[in-house]
Amino acid sequence: MNYDTFLSRAAEKMQQSAIRQMGTVAAQVPDIISFAPGYPSPDAFAWDAYREIASDLLGGRDGGVLQYGPTRGYKPLLETLVGLLERRGIAATPDQLMVTTGSQQGLDLAARVLLDPGDVVLLELPSYTGALTAFANAQASLVGVRQQPDGIDLDDLETVTARLAREGRRVKALYVVPNFQNPTGLLIGRPKRGALLEWAARHDTLVIEDDPYGELAFDEAITAADTRPIKADDAAGRVIYLSSFSKTLAPAFRSAWMVAPPPLAAKFEVAKQAIDLCTGSFDQRLVYEACRRGVLDRQIPTLRDLYRRRRDAMENALKCATGIGARWVTPRGGFFLWVTLPDEVDTTRLLPHAMRRGVIYVAGRAFHVDGTGHQTMRLAFSAATLERIAEGIGRLAAAITEQRAAPGPAPAPAAAIPAVP
Amino acid sequence: MNYDTFLSRAAEKMQQSAIRQMGTVAAQVPDIISFAPGYPSPDAFAWDAYREIASDLLGGRDGGVLQYGPTRGYKPLLETLVGLLERRGIAATPDQLMVTTGSQQGLDLAARVLLDPGDVVLLELPSYTGALTAFANAQASLVGVRQQPDGIDLDDLETVTARLAREGRRVKALYVVPNFQNPTGLLIGRPKRGALLEWAARHDTLVIEDDPYGELAFDEAITAADTRPIKADDAAGRVIYLSSFSKTLAPAFRSAWMVAPPPLAAKFEVAKQAIDLCTGSFDQRLVYEACRRGVLDRQIPTLRDLYRRRRDAMENALKCATGIGARWVTPRGGFFLWVTLPDEVDTTRLLPHAMRRGVIYVAGRAFHVDGTGHQTMRLAFSAATLERIAEGIGRLAAAITEQRAAPGPAPAPAAAIPAVP
Repeated sequence: MNYDTFLSRAAEKMQQSAIRQMGTVAAQVPDIISFAPGYPSPDAFAWDAYREIASDLLGGRDGGVLQYGPTRGYKPLLETLVGLLERRGIAATPDQLMVTTGSQQGLDLAARVLLDPGDVVLLELPSYTGALTAFANAQASLVGVRQQPDGIDLDDLETVTARLAREGRRVKALYVVPNFQNPTGLLIGRPKRGALLEWAARHDTLVIEDDPYGELAFDEAITAADTRPIKADDAAGRVIYLSSFSKTLAPAFRSAWMVAPPPLAAKFEVAKQAIDLCTGSFDQRLVYEACRRGVLDRQIPTLRDLYRRRRDAMENALKCATGIGARWVTPRGGFFLWVTLPDEVDTTRLLPHAMRRGVIYVAGRAFHVDGTGHQTMRLAFSAATLERIAEGIGRLAAAITEQRAAPGPAPAPAAAIPAVP
Repeated sequence: MNYDTFLSRAAEKMQQSAIRQMGTVAAQVPDIISFAPGYPSPDAFAWDAYREIASDLLGGRDGGVLQYGPTRGYKPLLETLVGLLERRGIAATPDQLMVTTGSQQGLDLAARVLLDPGDVVLLELPSYTGALTAFANAQASLVGVRQQPDGIDLDDLETVTARLAREGRRVKALYVVPNFQNPTGLLIGRPKRGALLEWAARHDTLVIEDDPYGELAFDEAITAADTRPIKADDAAGRVIYLSSFSKTLAPAFRSAWMVAPPPLAAKFEVAKQAIDLCTGSFDQRLVYEACRRGVLDRQIPTLRDLYRRRRDAMENALKCATGIGARWVTPRGGFFLWVTLPDEVDTTRLLPHAMRRGVIYVAGRAFHVDGTGHQTMRLAFSAATLERIAEGIGRLAAAITEQRAAPGPAPAPAAAIPAVP
C-alpha cells in the first residue's frame, strides 16, 4: 500500500535525518567516540539526590505525584521559576509562564501558534537544527543572518530585513541563542542585545530567545550582565524566552519552560492541551525538589568546572592537530566547539571516514538554512571524558588529513536536517 | 501590544476550554466532588513498586536513565510492547512501533502527519475531546457519525461517507475508541469491527484506533475476542493503533505508544524529533521495569475490580435518583458513564448550579463535533471513592431537579472544547 496520498504537505517534506541514520550505524561501531549529540555528562548527574527525592515523592502521600497535572505546570515549580528568572534579570509573572516538555516543545509551540506556511523566520547562520526543523514543519520560510565573533551581524540583519520588506514579506520572528549558541558557542555581545530589541520594535516583529546554556559560563570574566537575557529588557513584550533544566539537572526529566506575553502564553497553553495535556507530574516534582533542596545551585559550579576542562582538552587537542587547518572561536561556555576547515574539506563526505576511524560529529551544513557550511562541523565536548576527547580529536585529525590528501569532487548535496539537542 | 497579527490561522481558532476555566473555579470550591476529568484512582497506583524501581534505576550505573534517548523509544520497552500487543492479537514488528509522550501526542502526531486544512476526519458522536482538538488544530474538517448501543452506526457511516463523496470530499481517516469509549463507555460489537476494516478498504481511508481502556473490562462475559483491537485483523495496513500506560500504571509517566504501517511510523518518528526529541528516559524505564517485574499484570485485575465497584456505585446512585429522567447504557469497562437527560435540561447551563452544590462533570456538547448533545454529560466514576460517588450523584440530582423546576430559555451556545483525558 502506498501511503503518499495520506500525508499532509508538511509530512511530505519531513525527512529522516542523515545524522540519526549515522547514529544508528555508529551505535554498531565498537568504541566509537561521539562528539555528535549535545548530551550532558551523565557522571555529573546528581544521582544520589534524585534517588532520595524519588523515594520521598513515591511515598504515596500525595496522589498528584503520579497523576495528570495542570497544562501550565506544577504550581510550586512555576513559583520556583519566577525566582530563578529573577536572578537572570527577568521579572516574570505567573501568567507569562508555562512548563514545557523539553525546550523542543517550546520551539514547536512557538511554530504552531505563530507560523502559517510561508511566514518568514530569521535564524542565525548557523543555528540550532531543532529550531530549524520545528519552524520548517510549520512550513515557514527560513532566512539566514550571518554571525560575527560577538554574535549575530546587525548589519546583515538590517540588510536581510530590508530585502524582505522590498519583496513585501514580513518577518514574524527572529530566533536567537544568545548565550553560548548551539552550534557555534558564541555569545552575543551586550550592546547587540539592546540593538535586537530596537530592531524588533522598528520592524514590528517578535524575538524567540532560546537560553539553555546561559548558566554554563566558563570564563571568570563573564558576568551576569554578559549573559543577561534579551527578555530581561523587553519592556514592550516582543520576546518569547525559552530555557531548560536538561543541561543543568538532566534531560530525562523533560522539564523546560517558556516566558511569553500573557496573551501568547494563554495560546501556548491551549495549544499544549491538545499536544500532550501536561508535562509529566513526577518529572516536574523531581525538578522542583532538586531546586528546593539546593541541588541545582550546587550543580552549576560543578558543571562549569567540568565542561571548562573538557573544552580545554578539546581545544588543546585541536591545537596539537596541526596540518588540518582547523579554525574556531573559543567557546566561553556551553557544550559546543564549532570548527571551520579548509574549503576543500566537505564534512558530510568526511563523516563515513571519521566513523571508520571511530569518531563522530555533526556536519555543519545541517545548521545552515541557506545550504552553506560544507566545511564546518559541530563538536560537542560535553559528554566525553578528557582522555576520550584527546583520542577522538586525534582520530578526527587523521580522517581529515586522509580526506585532504584525496579530496572528493564537488561538495555533496545538502544533508537532511538532523534532530539532536 | 496586540498580538493578533502574530497568530497562525490555527492559533486564532484555539480557545481556552470552558471546562478548564470551570476547573479553575472548581479548585476554589471546598469539598467539590469531581466526575469531570478521566483521572485514574491514585490509591490504586503501585507506589511501593515504583519507589523500589526508581531507587534501583537511580543507582547511577546506567547513565542512559537520565539522558536523552532514541525518538522511537527505549528499546527494551519497545520489545515489551511487542509482547503486550501480541496478547491483544496484534502482531507488531519494531518498525511499526513508537513510544509517545502520552496518547495525546499520538493523536497530535496523526493530525500533523496526515491532515491538511480542510481534510475530512470522521468521529463518533460523541467522541473524545482531545482527539477532536488535535484534529481541529490541524484545521481538519470534522464530521460526526452516530452511535448505537453496540458502537458506531454503520448505516450512518455509509450515509455520511456517500454524502461526502457526492460533495467531492475524501475521508482521510475515521477516529474510533472501540473499547469502553471515552465518553460513552460503549463497546463496538465484534461484527462491526470487521465491517469497519471493509469500509476503510472500500473507501481507501485510514482508521485511527484509540485503545486506552481495553484492559479495563468489568464484565466476566467480556472475552479477549470482544475487546480484540481492529488493528489485530488489519492485514492491509489501514489502522493506526494507539494505547497507553496512563490508565493502568500512571498518567505521570507520560508513556503511551502507536502502532502504524512502517512508512507512517517512520514519518511519526521524524515528526516527533521536532516536537519533543524523545519521551522521558526515566519514565520509560520505570514503565519497562513495571512490566518486567509483573506490576502491570498484577494491576489489571485490581483495577478491574476497583472500577467495577465504582461503576456499580454510580449506577446505583443514579437509579435511586428517580425523577431526574436520566438514561444511560451500562458501561462494561473503562472510566465513564454517559448520561442523557430530558431535552429541557442543558448540561452547560446546569454546570454552575452543580458546582454550587459541590459536584462537577463534563457537559456533553464538547464531545459532539456537530454541536448537539446539550442534554448529555460525561461522568467519570474512576477517581472518586464509593462514598463520594453516592454523595456526588445526590448533589447532581438536586441540581438537575432544581434546573428542571426552573429551566432557562434556549440551550446555551456551543461550549469551547475541553482538553481533559
